[in-house]
Amino acid sequence: MPVGTQATVKAVTPKILEELEAEIILSNTYHLYLRPGHELINEAGGLHKFMNWNKPILTDSGGFQVFSLADLRKISEEGVEFQSHLDGSYHFFTPEKVMEIENNLGADIIMAFDICSPYPCSYEDANRDLEITLKWAKRCKAAHQREDQALFGIIQGGMYEDLRLRSVEEMVAMDFPGYGIGGLSVGEPKHLMYEVLDVLNPVMPKHKPRYLMGVGSPDCLVEGVMRGVDMFDCVLPTRIARNGTAMTSQGRVVVRNAAYQRDFTPLDPKCDCYTCQNFTRAYLRHLIKAEEILSSILITIHNIRFLINLMKKIREAIWEDRLPEFRQSFFEEYGYKEHL
Amino acid sequence: MPVGTQATVKAVTPKILEELEAEIILSNTYHLYLRPGHELINEAGGLHKFMNWNKPILTDSGGFQVFSLADLRKISEEGVEFQSHLDGSYHFFTPEKVMEIENNLGADIIMAFDICSPYPCSYEDANRDLEITLKWAKRCKAAHQREDQALFGIIQGGMYEDLRLRSVEEMVAMDFPGYGIGGLSVGEPKHLMYEVLDVLNPVMPKHKPRYLMGVGSPDCLVEGVMRGVDMFDCVLPTRIARNGTAMTSQGRVVVRNAAYQRDFTPLDPKCDCYTCQNFTRAYLRHLIKAEEILSSILITIHNIRFLINLMKKIREAIWEDRLPEFRQSFFEEYGYKEHL
Repeated sequence: MPVGTQATVKAVTPKILEELEAEIILSNTYHLYLRPGHELINEAGGLHKFMNWNKPILTDSGGFQVFSLADLRKISEEGVEFQSHLDGSYHFFTPEKVMEIENNLGADIIMAFDICSPYPCSYEDANRDLEITLKWAKRCKAAHQREDQALFGIIQGGMYEDLRLRSVEEMVAMDFPGYGIGGLSVGEPKHLMYEVLDVLNPVMPKHKPRYLMGVGSPDCLVEGVMRGVDMFDCVLPTRIARNGTAMTSQGRVVVRNAAYQRDFTPLDPKCDCYTCQNFTRAYLRHLIKAEEILSSILITIHNIRFLINLMKKIREAIWEDRLPEFRQSFFEEYGYKEHL
Repeated sequence: MPVGTQATVKAVTPKILEELEAEIILSNTYHLYLRPGHELINEAGGLHKFMNWNKPILTDSGGFQVFSLADLRKISEEGVEFQSHLDGSYHFFTPEKVMEIENNLGADIIMAFDICSPYPCSYEDANRDLEITLKWAKRCKAAHQREDQALFGIIQGGMYEDLRLRSVEEMVAMDFPGYGIGGLSVGEPKHLMYEVLDVLNPVMPKHKPRYLMGVGSPDCLVEGVMRGVDMFDCVLPTRIARNGTAMTSQGRVVVRNAAYQRDFTPLDPKCDCYTCQNFTRAYLRHLIKAEEILSSILITIHNIRFLINLMKKIREAIWEDRLPEFRQSFFEEYGYKEHL
């Protein structure tokens, strides 16, 4: 799903997102808590109304940003004290506080507060992070106030098979309507991520959504679905778009490169998006060189549409029972370079 | 008309511009000559195709940017030698060269190469600039190659009544299909601009378009039309949008201001644009504070639509023979602060 960090998917309007057939967007609880504040968004009538997005929204738990962006003061079983990366102000997140914030924001899917183990991480540390995450998940479930919001638990456990299995067992016992797979795509080699997914695939509930958090490269989407994943989110498609890089069926195209100066073909000849239907690589390169916002808009449109179309094709392949064949033909065209 | 400096109207797609009912955009010859180059745009099939804009385009002569942006080396009757503001490279613009560039770009309306007198400017200097501009206009007319492009002459003469009258007389004698009014909005007080327009209004041809160059504030549009002007261009609506300022029927709204933090009303309750129909000042202020590109997109959409609607209302008032009454009611609501 496209990521709406600051109550916006960067560089596109909700109308454009609807035209791209985006079905759900993610908003970051940590960012919105700090600015403009969950009370203000609640006053505005909730996040859907505030940002004018009438389809589903998912909010993350804030945990990932607390541990990656904020200045950390203290982690305890009670919660996490941290300083805002914006103004240094002090804040305390507990599972109960995060549920209050997410209830105020009013997303359709909300995530339980968790500790995302880094990579690399000792067994001892990953085990401790998991123990706290499990306790927090229970407290989130107890504190969660709104039945119209689906609260997902998050599977942690680092790269350790037994911890991941224990995480699934305990989380499933709490009976969430869906499960996030956290602690992956945190710097580990891709084959390690795939190994963890291979461990999780047979033991996670078959009829509940599985959401691989923070993953969004085309190759990982294909490999993730092969391993039972249903949902993904990532800043990658919009972030690399703003840096002038397009995702295409033949791999990444760094549009900024001089090679495209007189290339009067679209980013991806197979793509049906507004950008590919109307603009050339030469034009997009010109916009990038001239530092025009429109380059970010147009490449963001393409990258989001590319991933939405990729997921469409994956769903079709699943329906037609030919996912392995699809995977094979996808990588033959896309290239294996970024694969492992 | 919206201004497309770098072969784009900043922060919006051509599709959005069409939805806003923009009928014509301006592109800067100087910028496009330096980057990506007029030959490349010609190879791409011309500016319309390059930037995917199928309605009219006007290109300026490059003169204004040569005199305001470039490092000037030497002005002679032959032409102007200058250094690129981008890389310091040397270039020589003559009327013939500018026609070659504008013919290559392929806009529907193209402007003759001129010297825009600054403000303040001595009578002697304004007179010399005018003499050269008149000679260059003749040479542009002779060098212009494409009958599908309308070449407009530009009226100069600084703030001097006799020079302006002489400029009109000579330009009209050359029989251009339309006339730009240059050398205004260059730093002079607005009442001086209106005085020059009052001089020009009775003597310019009644049945040919009059284009007041570089003017785009709502009050100046109203006062300009009162003085016979048909066309305007300006970076103002899109530039102030990117700085977080909206044009409204009640004057400018600096959305960044703390006063709007919890203002859940639209930028302009009377506006029919996408932004006003779907987003609040509080949301736009949040986007500005978070430095989100979407704030530029949404306020640009509003400001362009605001001016297009203003010109619509002005045309209606002209048809219904009540322009003075429209002017009166416009300023009663808009305020007179920015008027003089």
